[in-house]
This record gives sequence, structure tokens and C-alpha cells, in this order.
Amino acid sequence: MIIVLKPNCTVEQLNHFTEGLKHDYDVKVNTWVGTQSTVLGLIGDTSAIDIDYIAAQDFVESVKRVQEPYKKANRKFHPDNTVITLPGGQKIGDGSLSIIAGPCSVETEDQICEVAERVKTAGAQFLRGGAFKPRTSPYAFQGLKADGLELLREARKKTGLPIVTEIMSAAHLPLFEDVDIIQVGARNMQNFELLKELGKIRKPILLKRGLSSTIEELLMSAEYIMAGGNDQVILCERGIRTYETYTRNTLDISAVPILKRLSHLPVIVDPSHASGIAWLVEPLAMAAVAAGADGLIIEVHNNPAKALSDGAQSLTPDQFDHVAKRVFTAAKLLRTEG
Amino acid sequence: MIIVLKPNCTVEQLNHFTEGLKHDYDVKVNTWVGTQSTVLGLIGDTSAIDIDYIAAQDFVESVKRVQEPYKKANRKFHPDNTVITLPGGQKIGDGSLSIIAGPCSVETEDQICEVAERVKTAGAQFLRGGAFKPRTSPYAFQGLKADGLELLREARKKTGLPIVTEIMSAAHLPLFEDVDIIQVGARNMQNFELLKELGKIRKPILLKRGLSSTIEELLMSAEYIMAGGNDQVILCERGIRTYETYTRNTLDISAVPILKRLSHLPVIVDPSHASGIAWLVEPLAMAAVAAGADGLIIEVHNNPAKALSDGAQSLTPDQFDHVAKRVFTAAKLLRTEG
Amino acid sequence: MIIVLKPNCTVEQLNHFTEGLKHDYDVKVNTWVGTQSTVLGLIGDTSAIDIDYIAAQDFVESVKRVQEPYKKANRKFHPDNTVITLPGGQKIGDGSLSIIAGPCSVETEDQICEVAERVKTAGAQFLRGGAFKPRTSPYAFQGLKADGLELLREARKKTGLPIVTEIMSAAHLPLFEDVDIIQVGARNMQNFELLKELGKIRKPILLKRGLSSTIEELLMSAEYIMAGGNDQVILCERGIRTYETYTRNTLDISAVPILKRLSHLPVIVDPSHASGIAWLVEPLAMAAVAAGADGLIIEVHNNPAKALSDGAQSLTPDQFDHVAKRVFTAAKLLRTEG
Amino acid sequence: MIIVLKPNCTVEQLNHFTEGLKHDYDVKVNTWVGTQSTVLGLIGDTSAIDIDYIAAQDFVESVKRVQEPYKKANRKFHPDNTVITLPGGQKIGDGSLSIIAGPCSVETEDQICEVAERVKTAGAQFLRGGAFKPRTSPYAFQGLKADGLELLREARKKTGLPIVTEIMSAAHLPLFEDVDIIQVGARNMQNFELLKELGKIRKPILLKRGLSSTIEELLMSAEYIMAGGNDQVILCERGIRTYETYTRNTLDISAVPILKRLSHLPVIVDPSHASGIAWLVEPLAMAAVAAGADGLIIEVHNNPAKALSDGAQSLTPDQFDHVAKRVFTAAKLLRTEG
Repeated sequence: MIIVLKPNCTVEQLNHFTEGLKHDYDVKVNTWVGTQSTVLGLIGDTSAIDIDYIAAQDFVESVKRVQEPYKKANRKFHPDNTVITLPGGQKIGDGSLSIIAGPCSVETEDQICEVAERVKTAGAQFLRGGAFKPRTSPYAFQGLKADGLELLREARKKTGLPIVTEIMSAAHLPLFEDVDIIQVGARNMQNFELLKELGKIRKPILLKRGLSSTIEELLMSAEYIMAGGNDQVILCERGIRTYETYTRNTLDISAVPILKRLSHLPVIVDPSHASGIAWLVEPLAMAAVAAGADGLIIEVHNNPAKALSDGAQSLTPDQFDHVAKRVFTAAKLLRTEG
Repeated sequence: MIIVLKPNCTVEQLNHFTEGLKHDYDVKVNTWVGTQSTVLGLIGDTSAIDIDYIAAQDFVESVKRVQEPYKKANRKFHPDNTVITLPGGQKIGDGSLSIIAGPCSVETEDQICEVAERVKTAGAQFLRGGAFKPRTSPYAFQGLKADGLELLREARKKTGLPIVTEIMSAAHLPLFEDVDIIQVGARNMQNFELLKELGKIRKPILLKRGLSSTIEELLMSAEYIMAGGNDQVILCERGIRTYETYTRNTLDISAVPILKRLSHLPVIVDPSHASGIAWLVEPLAMAAVAAGADGLIIEVHNNPAKALSDGAQSLTPDQFDHVAKRVFTAAKLLRTEG
Repeated sequence: MIIVLKPNCTVEQLNHFTEGLKHDYDVKVNTWVGTQSTVLGLIGDTSAIDIDYIAAQDFVESVKRVQEPYKKANRKFHPDNTVITLPGGQKIGDGSLSIIAGPCSVETEDQICEVAERVKTAGAQFLRGGAFKPRTSPYAFQGLKADGLELLREARKKTGLPIVTEIMSAAHLPLFEDVDIIQVGARNMQNFELLKELGKIRKPILLKRGLSSTIEELLMSAEYIMAGGNDQVILCERGIRTYETYTRNTLDISAVPILKRLSHLPVIVDPSHASGIAWLVEPLAMAAVAAGADGLIIEVHNNPAKALSDGAQSLTPDQFDHVAKRVFTAAKLLRTEG
Repeated sequence: MIIVLKPNCTVEQLNHFTEGLKHDYDVKVNTWVGTQSTVLGLIGDTSAIDIDYIAAQDFVESVKRVQEPYKKANRKFHPDNTVITLPGGQKIGDGSLSIIAGPCSVETEDQICEVAERVKTAGAQFLRGGAFKPRTSPYAFQGLKADGLELLREARKKTGLPIVTEIMSAAHLPLFEDVDIIQVGARNMQNFELLKELGKIRKPILLKRGLSSTIEELLMSAEYIMAGGNDQVILCERGIRTYETYTRNTLDISAVPILKRLSHLPVIVDPSHASGIAWLVEPLAMAAVAAGADGLIIEVHNNPAKALSDGAQSLTPDQFDHVAKRVFTAAKLLRTEG
């Protein structure tokens, strides 16, 4: 940690401050006296030091961390890739391409089972479907809730596909006991009370990046879950909010290689939410594979025009067949030659 | 609602679609045939129509709402200002300037009581203090929780100031029974499960704008609370996330007059979080008053350099005295001449 | 064009306004009277109507264009891909992958010639190099200017690679007569006086997207050049400004398929400026190819650590060999199976 | 300047690098060896060191400047406020409130003269009007150019108000000889060739912040002009681009006190462009005054509904009377009590 002091910092303040730091933390303090400012360098384990506390001293000009503030999610301390393995043997992060597909919302048994069969045939290894839906408007369809979870279990029984579905409140956790992968949506990425509860269970968590969260904040939210003892976290880039209005969000494709470098956790991409437009799913999915993503999560609906939510970005099963074929081929070709 | 169709929409599709709309909703449909596209205009109550559903039709090019999607928060249907009145007679939204002040985190009885006395003397009518703290890092101080609420009650007993504090989970609601105003933080603005629970109680809710939420999304979150029957919502602009790095966030000062025009709810500004820098609190607070804000929420700590969180943006009680004097004077002068 | 009127618009205002529109432009006006507002639909050629003029009427609530405001750059009116062909036969936009490579700044004859030889060997068909450099600081190296152009010509003579270099002022145009492709940098994308001058010449223009320009604004800037009669425009996505600080900019990969759909012009990607980090160039270049880009522009320096500008994002010739091999292979594989 | 090295940096590289720095620049280098990384601290005049050059070394992890990269615009080296004084005695930056008002575009002699008379009567000390107009569309009105400048001179003759108008190309400079204050628009803030030419003249330059420029970049552009010897620069905050769509731009009100603290140059605010909406001009102008702005630039048109550009954000002369009265009163009251 590097601390730049203001020119008006007195020797007495400086001594008192550095003594305090050495006393409270296991650090050594180096001091440099420059022409315009004095700089302190803290050596040791600085991760317990609150950067806000340092910045609050009125003789401090600025502070900069040299070490990343996350540990369990950090590749430096865990060089090998984390591979998520489900009881049925499905994997995410093992070098193959994993696809999670299904409708935005679970609507009826026919719908979810038909979609499940179709995405399975196309090669998807996981079924997604929303039972609890975060909607901007209180007047919009809010999901089938417990009934939706029941329908997902039906679809799993018929197809064998593990199910991935979103949780919106820790209070619902008992309903999720039988869910294979629990998703945390973008709007809850910093719902820290929820993250803490998810740290206590032993089930993979699919953690979506918040609408305007930095890469570091996403990793800090993963750290919340991991700090609780649950190290099965899957990171998901799903587009960030920018000034561009053509797409619903802007897919930050750079986040894929960056997350892979900074962390050992698997990284997947959601081209459906990133764009909000069905015809963009294919090129964005291809880009994600080429950039090194471990998987994709794609919205598929048997009848997008009748979907109760997110129809505009859902693929039909036929369109999904085509996209799945292309991305699996690309993954095979690019990873062979790479 | 205006719907632009793609050039390839067939007459059969068009008829089927418009018949469906007229059947399902209480609307009339006007059709225009243009040189390059056909446009539909829906007249009637379109607020129940899901815009996603329309956009999902593959013959639809784009959709645009003419009516706002919020009703209870909408000034059109409720022209008079909402005034929040507490049992002790304190008001927000009545034309006077309301100030909520106090530390980021409640730390000790001495701390909260000393700050409470000082901000009361300076003119603040409400005491803020965090007991449950949303922190980016799981390793940072998370607040005193229930004990913090107890200390706030102590400070209220000593000063008579109503207390304002943040809730992070609906599961904590029983602990908040005795809190005067419950705050929803920026990271929870779209924690819809929490909003629904807050709609069921009868207590003022201070709703902070999300880090990258639009003005309309803030009003939709207010609508969630109001749709549940709780119409005591106070809106808070606290800075949005932009590319500028000098400040922690960018205060969107325009949001103040816009929210006042679109909605009847009171609007306050948080210059402490908007900037993250203590010396900016004064000019931003002044700007907020000049732009028409109903109130301010300001972080004050008896010893910012020792604060367990957000010290860099906290004022000392002496600094707060000065700011309070300036903003109350400005409110008086500007509202007299206005 | 769809115009929503305010509820207080009088019949007299409405009649006067619609008569004026029909008189001044070749349009028909349809009127709908809704429950809360009246809506006008303009049919005909509305591209000459200034949307600001409409919005300025005090009885107008909002205006929305149905037609895109660009014509010459619009694929609707020019369905076939534009292919840029240089006198030496090199092409951009013909379905193959075009690579422009070279140093940020031209520094010495040895440097530019060595880099040119190396990138040619690796398969690049074009040489880039900056002679006039837009630098944030007036104290930073500003480029070799005319001497730099001379060195580029030397490198072209030795390798046969056409040269691509940036222009910063129309006043320099005489110096650029012998340049093969003239680049307009991100900071000049809306330097309309420069665009107008470039519309008068008959030479391909590589137009970079502005730091915070929308896709539509990029196409409008292309339209400026094309409106002058120069229809050889190459569009370049080079990252946009967002709140994320890990990368210098955020590559908007979605812009590639969107620009290809909206326009017939070729689209290339600059992974070097988009990220500002050398190790990110490979995954971003791969993503660009997978998303359908017609080409790439990549910074290569024979000694990045000694580069006078942008060293942190430059590849060494050896690194470029590797990237070029991967992207050419990917282009071949993906376009064969596609 | 603080340089963090990667763990794999060898002692030989380190020695070679630090010797080179000491040889090339007038700096001393301090070295700290930490547990995970080594940090260098450069003491002396580091402003000539290119931060890109440092970052490009492959053993460098990150670099951070301690000193600001601008000097002539920096308040540290020029503590007193710069006051711009025109030959007619009008001042900007002397503690009073300066108002520049007038139409977006000069259209006719009657129009500009009528507006000039009205804004003068209301208290404006300067007349604005666009003769060369930067328009997104090549098909929109581009301004009256030289004829527009002539009409501005007429209006000045009639009212005595100094004229402020935008330049779009250094090639037009001869036409601007008789202009009192030359404006650089947001889209040209980083048109460095133009800035260099403006550094050679001796006339006040009104420099608008770019659409997505940081505060530091704005100051660096001012530095370009000042480095050429022209120290009469007026900074203008005019709204930045964000994700919020209600307003055309988002006024960054914090930029006012920050610019005043970092620089000695006068700072004005453009509430018309910041919002794009006429009714928002008043509250934003009030906020700017309260935040400490030295002046305002406001669009006024005698008939906004007939304006050839920007009508939606223009005030009528009557509306401007009201706004001017409020802001002058506010400036008087707030600066007296402050």
C-alpha cells in the first residue's frame, strides 16, 4: 500500500501515524521525502487495512493498493483453475464449452419440458429457467415462484439436465435445496446479506456481474461467498451499462480474459442479456468462445412472441440449434489450434 | 404506446396481432401505413402491457411508451406534493429544508450521542447512522448490527432526533420496528423482494438511487413500495457511476428538478456519497438547495480520521456547523426571493 | 417520424403546425387523439426535417425518428458490401481478414522498416504508423510529422505494404497525397470541418469511433464523408469510455455485427487501443474475428519498452507472429464452417 | 511518480532501468523491496517523463503520478485567480457573475439584434451566437459562417456586448480576428492542432469540456493553449455523457468546485447544453451559481419554435429575464453571506 501525504503534514503527525500503523497491523513502513510530497510504503499483509480509514486522515493526499483486496478468488494464491463438477458429472471450467440454456421465465410444464428437450438435443448440458423474476415494474409478471421450481424439477426428471435458477432473497433458500446451481442476478450482485447466506451452503453459485460493477467488485462479491466457505463460484459477464442505446447493455468482452487471469474461477458469458436482441446472440456467443469463455448462458423459448418476459432476446429452439452448432464447432477448432 | 412494424409484416400478422391486443387489453389500435413502415398507436390504459412482449414479436421494429410506466409515484395522478410527517412533527417535503446528519457507521455510545448533540445544535432535524453496513469487502467492518440500532435509540432518547438507518435484508425488519425512517441503500434499490416487504409496512422509506439507475428506474422502485400500500417514500439522489475518477460518483444535480416534476415525492440529496470527499460536501449541498432539493443527508463524524468507514467523506461537527449555517441561510434567501 | 403532443396543445396550434409541416416538406400527417395525448405520424421523406426543430415546439412532448438519419452509409439503400480495393490489389471488406499493423509512432527509418518487414512476413497486408500524434499532453512526443510520412514511404518502398496514417488537420492534406489510407482518430471523429475536406478527396478513409460516440453518430460521421462524394469509408471500433478502469477503454464487440447490419461499409477492430494492454490484444482480436470483423489494426513495435508512445499496448514482432497466426487460422476455420 | 514492479523483475533489469531514469531525467530513485513486489519512488521533476514509456516496460506492474501533469493551468504554481478582462472592461473570474447569452445559431440580423438587446437589458454582459455550427448530420443547417460573424459584429455595434462564437477549424482564424472571445466546442476539445493555433493568438478562449473528457483532460487541453503562450482560458462545464437518457447530457456540477481548486482559471457552466431542455436551465443555473461558478452561458432565442438549431433548449427573452433575475440575486445573496 502506497500513501501520498499532503505537503502540510507535520513530522509529529507523520510519526504518530506510522507508529500507529506498525502497532495495529503486521506491516513495516518505508518513508520517502520527495520535493513536493512525502510518500509512505507499507510492506506486509495490508489486506486487513481499510483504505477508507487511511484516506480519511486529513494529511493524506491519496492511497493506492498494490495488492488485490481479494484472496480466495485470486489466482495468485490458487494458480489452478477451479472446475465445478455436478453430481451427474457435468462440469464447468474444465476446458470444454458448457452451455446453460432455457427460457427467461418458467411458464408451463409443456413449455419448460419442450424447451429442455430441445436444448438438450442441441447439446446444452444445463437447463436455465426463472421462477423468481426481478422485474423493473411491480405490475409485470413476477414468475411462478415455488411452482416454477417444481416445473424445473419436472423438466430435469425428463431430460437429466441439471437446473440453474435465480434466487432473489435468502428467505427463499429452503425452496432451492434441490436446485443444482443457484444464480445471483446482476441486481443482487452486491446484496451482501444474500451473498453471506450463499457462502454457508455447499452448492455452485452462478454470480452475475452487476450492471455497473467493476471487475474488481465482481471478484469481491465472489470473495463474500468464498469467505463463507463456499468455493464453487461461477462468474458471469452479462453486459454493463454504458451510454450506447442500440443494445440493452454493452458486452464487456475484455472481462473474460481479465477474469481468467485474475481469478481461477470459471467465467461464462450471457449474450442474451448483454444485447437484449435475439439476432445478436450468435455473434456475441462466438466472440465469447473466441475470447476464452468457459461457457455460455442463452435464453431459448419455444415461442418467443408469447414469452412472458424477455421475448425480444430469446432464441427459438431452431435458432438455438444453429448457434449451438456454431459455438461447439468453434470451441473445438479454436482450442485445437490454440 | 407506439409500435413500429418491420416492412416484412404481413397483413395477416398485423390483423392477428391487433385483434389480440384489443381482446387482451382495454385499448383501441390505430394503424398508419407509411412509405417504409407501418405504425400502430395504442390508445387507452397501456400500463398493463409488457413492453418486452411487444418487442418480442418478430415483425416489430421498435416500441415506445407515451405514458410513464409508474402511476402511484406520478405527479400527473397526484399533483400535490407528498409531505412526510413524523410523530414528533418533523417534516420532509413541506417546503422547508430538512437535514439528516450523522456518522456513516454507529461505533460507540459516546460517538453517536456526541455527534447527535452536535448536529442537533447545528440545526439537523434527523440523525443518521449505519448499523448494518454494505461493504464491498467481506473483510471490512460490517457494522454493529442490533447493537448499533440500540445505540441509535439511545441517541434519540437523549436528543429527540428521529433516527434514519439502512436495512439490508427483509429478515431484519423486526429489528427496525422502532426506527423512524428506514433507508434502502443504492445497492439494494432493485432488491425487489426487500421493496415488496417495505411496501407492507407503514413507515417512511428513504430510497436511494442505484449506482447506475435511471431516473425512471428509481421511480419504478418507489412504485414497488407504493404498490404495496406504503406511500411514504423519500427519493434520494446520491451520485451515479460515470467515467470520471476524481469523485467517487458524479452527482446528477439535474435529477432533483426532474424528480420533483415527474413525481410528488420529496427529493433529498446526499453530497457525501456523491463525491466521497469532505471538502466537496459544502458546494454540492449548496447546489442541491439551489436546484430545489427538499433536504440533505450528510455524513458527520466526531473524529473522521478514526471513523470505521467513509472517513474521507465525513465532516467534523465544526465543519458541519459551517455547512448547515450556509445551506439554511441559502434556503431561506433563495426561497424568499424565488 | 412520430410526434407526441402535450395535453395542453390547442386545436389551433395543432392545425397550424400540421399545415406548416405539409407545406414545408413532402410529408403527409396522420393524427391520433389518445386519452392522454395526441400523436402525429409523418409519412414521406422525413430525413430533411430537423428533429430539434420539432422538439422545440412548446406543445411537443417528444419526437422519435422511424427512419435512420443516414442514407449513403445505410445498408437499406445499398444492400451489397462495400469493398475497398487499393491500386496494389489489397482489399478490405471482401470476406477475407485484413490486418493493418505497425508502430503507434514512426520513430526512425530502422524502426519502421524493421517492423514493416516483420508484420509483412506475419501476413499483415497494410502498414500503420503515426506521423502526426494526438497526445493528451502538450509536453509529450508529438510525432515526426512530415519526416514521419517520408519514413513511411520508405518502408512502403521496401515492403510494398500500403500505408495507413492519421491526419489531424485538413491543413496537412497536401502532405497526405501519397498516403494509401488516411485515418481519422477517435478524438477527431466529430471534427466536421476535417470530415468535409475528406469527403472531397478520392482515397479510403479509416474512421475511428469517438471515445463516447454512439453507433449512430459513427455512421453520421461516415455520412459526412460520403455526402461529399467519397464513399470509401472503413469503420473502426476501438473501445468506448466506460466506468471500468482495468482497461483503457471498453471494447464494444457488439458494434461489429450491428455496424455490419446497419451499413454496407467494412468494419475493423483495434484491440490495441481498446484495451491499452499488450496481453489483451490476442483474445480481443480473436473475439473480433469471431464476431465478424473484416479486419484488425494492431500496434507492433520492435522494442515496446523504448517506444515513444503507447508501448504498454504494443506487441513485439514475435508476439504479433503468434497473434497473426491465430487470427488467420480462426478466420479460415470459422468462415469455412459458418 | 511511483512505479510498482512485477515480482519477476530481475536485479539486473532493475539496476539498468533506474540508472537510465537517473541519467535521462533530473530525478532521484528510491527503491523499496516489499514482500510481494518492489516499488520505486521517483523524486524530482517527473512531468517530462512519459507515463506510457514507464508502463511499457515488461517488468512494470503499474505507475502512478503524484504530481499533476499540467503546470500552467495549475493553481499550485499560480495561486491567484486568473481574471479575464476585455478591452471594454467586461470581466470573467473577478468574483462577479458573468453571463453570456444568445441564440445557438445566428440566423438573421433582426434575430441576433433583437436577442442581443433583450439579453443586455436582462443583465448579460456578453453575446453568444453560432456562425459555424458543428452538427451531427451533414444535412442539418451548418450556420451562416462568415455572414453570421458579420451579423454578430452588427449586434455588437448596436449593443456594445462583446461577442463569443465558436471556431471549428484553425483555417477560419483570419475570420475571427474581430471576435472578442473564441469558443472551442466540446467536440473539438481534443482537436490538438486547433488548440496549438489558439495558443499563438492573444485572445480569450472559452474551452468547453469534451462529451466524455475527464477533468484532468480538460485541464490538459487548457495547458495546450497556455503552453503556446495564451494564458486567457475560460473553462466551461457543459454536461458529460452518461447512461441517463432523460437529459441530453448529465451536468457534472462537482466539476465546478474541483476545477476552481485545481486551477486558477475561471469556470463557467452551460446549463442549456447540459440538459437540452429549456425548463431545466433555471434550476441548473441556480445550482451552478451556488456551487461557485464564475459565469453562465445560456441559449436564448426570440422564437425558439422557429430556431434553426437547439430550439428545445433555448429560453425565450422573457424566460431569460426571469432566470437572469434569479441568478444575479442568488449570486449577490450567497456571496454576501458566504
